[in-house]
Amino acid sequence: MRKVDPEKFEARKQQILAAAITCFTRKGFHGTSTAEICAEAGMSPGNLFHYYPTKQAIIAAIVEQDRRETAAYFAQIDQSRDLFDEILKFMDIVLELAADPAYSSLALEISAEAMRDKEIAALVSAYDAEMQASLSVMLRDAASRGQIDATLDPVETARWVAALIDGIFGRIAVDPGFHPLEQQANLHLLLTRFLRPGAKGAGKAAREQTVKA
Amino acid sequence: MRKVDPEKFEARKQQILAAAITCFTRKGFHGTSTAEICAEAGMSPGNLFHYYPTKQAIIAAIVEQDRRETAAYFAQIDQSRDLFDEILKFMDIVLELAADPAYSSLALEISAEAMRDKEIAALVSAYDAEMQASLSVMLRDAASRGQIDATLDPVETARWVAALIDGIFGRIAVDPGFHPLEQQANLHLLLTRFLRPGAKGAGKAAREQTVKA
Repeated sequence: MRKVDPEKFEARKQQILAAAITCFTRKGFHGTSTAEICAEAGMSPGNLFHYYPTKQAIIAAIVEQDRRETAAYFAQIDQSRDLFDEILKFMDIVLELAADPAYSSLALEISAEAMRDKEIAALVSAYDAEMQASLSVMLRDAASRGQIDATLDPVETARWVAALIDGIFGRIAVDPGFHPLEQQANLHLLLTRFLRPGAKGAGKAAREQTVKA
Repeated sequence: MRKVDPEKFEARKQQILAAAITCFTRKGFHGTSTAEICAEAGMSPGNLFHYYPTKQAIIAAIVEQDRRETAAYFAQIDQSRDLFDEILKFMDIVLELAADPAYSSLALEISAEAMRDKEIAALVSAYDAEMQASLSVMLRDAASRGQIDATLDPVETARWVAALIDGIFGRIAVDPGFHPLEQQANLHLLLTRFLRPGAKGAGKAAREQTVKA
């Protein structure tokens, strides 16, 4: 067997992923053949096989990459800041990603694929559980510092924050009138009222408050 | 051409839909052939064609049936009641449907199918728009009667209620720890705080309040 330079190997894998994402965004998973991915990446089909044995393996790698990026995002959060603000900031990023047609169509393709493929479903669930756990820790810490309502159960509340994330992508799929970047104030209002009822910004005059946030 | 008894024709279509739903729930859309649907319905493939020319037409009919049932539900709501309570009741039904494995797996299959099929996507979007419009009218009327916060925009708020419905089914897809029937109190708390902040049941002691609701 030929010796493989791990750095070159990794770079080539990244290049294939980028090419695959371009193809998937253009034509969906089912509409894209591995031959097209090879053409986009400028390599031969026989060569692709060394990096990813199947199209499913490429999809799995995309989920894994997104999971790593989300984990890295949670890891870099400045714990000295108001964690409620940090949750709002995270949700703003979700809105930005949802507003990116390439990201959102890929995310929706992955959800649909998870319905058909048990391995992809397991990866997506593991990613979701990890994200929910990170949110849950943030909510617990925020509650213990008085930054959000301490009577909320952090685990169950994280579930509903995750449900809102699902809902944002769900809206993208079915509702052409849902423009994520125009929904920031509404989402902040909902989260402020839910997570810190009675706080400044949670009342009836919250609209202007949240628009500038 | 033979004369068709419209009542018999409609009854046969309902029978085929029921057989198809049984098959789809068992094996998904892609895993089910029209031959299997015929076997389940006890009819010949040539005969099925008179009722539904394709599997897609059956899926479309399932969406249409669900749309009609939802429209009928909104039409029978007693307008003299507190419309906020009626919204909570509607969301309780969503939780019950999500807790039904046959309904929720079919709903998720339809969402996935809408990613691949423009006609199904158009039907799903039209259904969603109709449901959102009904919710929006309820929210507007509830606001004008002082049953919810009058500063909320009914159209945009209906979008977020719809996003929560997407989110409930999204959780079913990825989160084995999400048990819809156990989430009623959390959902009531979220909706109470969002839609009528400051009201009884929206505060910190809301948990017991909403559990009994």
